Amino acid sequence: MDTRSIGVFDSGLGGLTAVRQLRRLMPSENIIYFGDTARVPYGNRSRETLLQYARQDMRFLSSFDLKAVVIACGTVSTNCLEELRAESGVPVTGVVEPAVERAAALTRSGKIGLAATRASVASGAYERAFRRLDPALEVHALACPLFVPLVEEGRCRPGDTVIETVAAEYLAPLKEVGVDTLVLGCTHYPLLAEVIGGVMGPEVSLVDVGAEAARACRDLLAAADALANRGEGSVRFYTSDRAVNFRRLAALFLGEEAAGAVEQVDIFQY
Amino acid sequence: MDTRSIGVFDSGLGGLTAVRQLRRLMPSENIIYFGDTARVPYGNRSRETLLQYARQDMRFLSSFDLKAVVIACGTVSTNCLEELRAESGVPVTGVVEPAVERAAALTRSGKIGLAATRASVASGAYERAFRRLDPALEVHALACPLFVPLVEEGRCRPGDTVIETVAAEYLAPLKEVGVDTLVLGCTHYPLLAEVIGGVMGPEVSLVDVGAEAARACRDLLAAADALANRGEGSVRFYTSDRAVNFRRLAALFLGEEAAGAVEQVDIFQY
Repeated sequence: MDTRSIGVFDSGLGGLTAVRQLRRLMPSENIIYFGDTARVPYGNRSRETLLQYARQDMRFLSSFDLKAVVIACGTVSTNCLEELRAESGVPVTGVVEPAVERAAALTRSGKIGLAATRASVASGAYERAFRRLDPALEVHALACPLFVPLVEEGRCRPGDTVIETVAAEYLAPLKEVGVDTLVLGCTHYPLLAEVIGGVMGPEVSLVDVGAEAARACRDLLAAADALANRGEGSVRFYTSDRAVNFRRLAALFLGEEAAGAVEQVDIFQY
Repeated sequence: MDTRSIGVFDSGLGGLTAVRQLRRLMPSENIIYFGDTARVPYGNRSRETLLQYARQDMRFLSSFDLKAVVIACGTVSTNCLEELRAESGVPVTGVVEPAVERAAALTRSGKIGLAATRASVASGAYERAFRRLDPALEVHALACPLFVPLVEEGRCRPGDTVIETVAAEYLAPLKEVGVDTLVLGCTHYPLLAEVIGGVMGPEVSLVDVGAEAARACRDLLAAADALANRGEGSVRFYTSDRAVNFRRLAALFLGEEAAGAVEQVDIFQY
């Protein structure tokens, strides 16, 4: 038993969809969440800039006594995982490997789609991970740069012409090649599950990368006998910009009221 | 005659629409452009964070020998102009005052609309400037947070369902109150002039804030006898992220090939 906290970070608040899954799987754990709202979004930035930002995010989280870190940002996971892992004193879980394992287990046709940010697709990280697992898998990666701004504006529900038009357009090539499994490679995308499921059809399995990362983190802590077996855990929230819109967006991503205080961090000091 | 350069900055590349107007009005001038592409967009950030970023942007520009600065960012102009002006050694032109003068001259009904980012609307800067000029003017301000991401993805042309749906939805309240003049309060928005004009109708005058800021800068230099009267001037481009997508976006905003090298700046050092 280990009562230290789990650190989680994302470019913004999308990573709270992973926090939701961590809390569902491990309600006893304390969680420290950092969202880099002063520099969100990460999805179009270069690898060099991403690494600089991610290192600062990690250094801030490392100021707490942690037993594990979950990178709840698809773009950082695909571009910076190796460096962050090498530099971290505690186990680091990214979103790629757990999602790849799940998708490989789910597919029957061997044709897998990936919807992600531009930087995630450019990294080739999913293709490499699939190839390591099974070189016979056919992976079709697709950048969906408007999904994040649309979700952040709350345009994620079926019936909204804007998100439905964008989703149908982005996903058309994946429908055409006939993937039977689609990795939603960004922690904002679970909010689009209904819209994306509507476009792809019920026969296509969707993989939520945040949920898979939460599962992987739970397995890792369980194997090390490091789960906190006690009452209800807590979540502490930190953001790099003023927490003006925090409540509205946090409730959206977390699926519950974000209880507790939100503190602002000067991330440029890290 | 003063052959020093004019400094121009924006959160990203939208400010190049102002550079286009500066070059049209003053083809002899040398221009130094900085786009903070590592931290774009600014439009949803808090005033504190904006001021921190804008001061770094100004400090970088101040490393050149300048005769004037144009803040080609609506969000910085509305939130930080006073501080930047007080701290600058050269005249600083923001987008608010020139646009307000033009809109007040154009309106016949006295009902003026403003479309801008969330942070610009929240600042109340346009309302204050209109009130100083003529307290009888009726100003209707509207945040249009999806305009910037849509323009950056090239979704700015008539016939595109997504931008047309978003524009019609955002602008409906302004149509309803019957404004006859609409200030496009962000340097990305000139690319939406056709779409916005289509929604508002031909009887509504559109005010391009970048073009008005360029005009104000020209007037200011002319009054100080500080125009560069010589051959063709040059533009030097600097960005804070790697210049991967620079050419594509720059051509879009500048309306011409962006000639010359683009250099990357470590803005966090300023």
